[in-house]
Amino acid sequence: MKFYDCTPAPSPRRVRIFIAEKGLEIETVQVDLMNKEQMNPDFMAKNPWLTVPVLELDDGTCISEIGACCRYLEEAYPEPPLMGRDPKEKAVIEMWNHHMEVDGFMAGSEALRNYAKGMKGRALTGPHDYEQIPELAERGKKRLGHFFADLDTRLGESEYIAGDSYSVADITALVTVDFAGWVKVTPQDDQTNLKRWYAAVSARPSAKA
Amino acid sequence: MKFYDCTPAPSPRRVRIFIAEKGLEIETVQVDLMNKEQMNPDFMAKNPWLTVPVLELDDGTCISEIGACCRYLEEAYPEPPLMGRDPKEKAVIEMWNHHMEVDGFMAGSEALRNYAKGMKGRALTGPHDYEQIPELAERGKKRLGHFFADLDTRLGESEYIAGDSYSVADITALVTVDFAGWVKVTPQDDQTNLKRWYAAVSARPSAKA
Repeated sequence: MKFYDCTPAPSPRRVRIFIAEKGLEIETVQVDLMNKEQMNPDFMAKNPWLTVPVLELDDGTCISEIGACCRYLEEAYPEPPLMGRDPKEKAVIEMWNHHMEVDGFMAGSEALRNYAKGMKGRALTGPHDYEQIPELAERGKKRLGHFFADLDTRLGESEYIAGDSYSVADITALVTVDFAGWVKVTPQDDQTNLKRWYAAVSARPSAKA
Repeated sequence: MKFYDCTPAPSPRRVRIFIAEKGLEIETVQVDLMNKEQMNPDFMAKNPWLTVPVLELDDGTCISEIGACCRYLEEAYPEPPLMGRDPKEKAVIEMWNHHMEVDGFMAGSEALRNYAKGMKGRALTGPHDYEQIPELAERGKKRLGHFFADLDTRLGESEYIAGDSYSVADITALVTVDFAGWVKVTPQDDQTNLKRWYAAVSARPSAKA
């Protein structure tokens, strides 16, 4: 198995943390997104959506998209579980992870990709070009503000995001909080539940991944 | 178990088709989105994100979000499998379903919610209000056009979207094709692979759900 990565990018970091929590060692190949290496024909053959992370299995099957990479690793290496142990836990974690992804991580992408000069004409990942929409960059920042407030409320009632145990939802949220700093949205001083949780998940060895 | 539904809406239809493919009968409660019933305190207590579908388990746990509802049903009622049987199949289906969801279904939502008069100030679902962005409605339609073309290519190399078997990715795509008609984006005459597949999945009894 090989892991296609790009160290500075938030998306592959989510899978790197997942791999670290599982205690796995996987051969890693860097894809230099700054130099558009994801548009090389060799890489496009592995992932026509032109993104990292990608897991290449030993039979040559390429798994792209963060959720699909995590799914493969969870099913192939079940311990410790990061996506739940029974139908209810799995569903609850998937529900929370969906919100971390859509309300948080995708809001961050919306804010960054519609604003950054280097992403002109590339407001969405993938094989098609889309122009930036400045109003969307503003909306993304507003959404991140709501996301932090809602997360603070949630973490006032639960130790981790999806319940009593650390899960993939915590990984998605941790990377989102760090990523939001790129567009200068940071937790507020009075979001003490969020800060308590952020300190705890950031202190895990996996957070350095 | 109870299923909170709204018959005319595309999102709960995705879970209705999933339930029909599993051969399950689940007590259904209609939530009248046209009359903003999702904002009633009783429903908000079940789903603070104010959406259907929701599955309410017998212990009172409420599972919202389409993917999480499907996950619960797949894990609790594994036959017939709609999300794969082994780590690789599960990951490949999740990868394809991600693209049906993000590139297709979410593009449709972007097109509709940024355009429809009845959704003014409600361009995103959830507890926070966001204004419509007309450029985003246009972008959503453009994305749907690309989505259909890419899907036609994929269905030229595979019987179903994620491989040889019908899966949740086909459900997401079928509902997206029907939903795209709401914003007047329809398959092109020369997209014959897409049309072959659409006829096949629409002819399944579950498509009436």
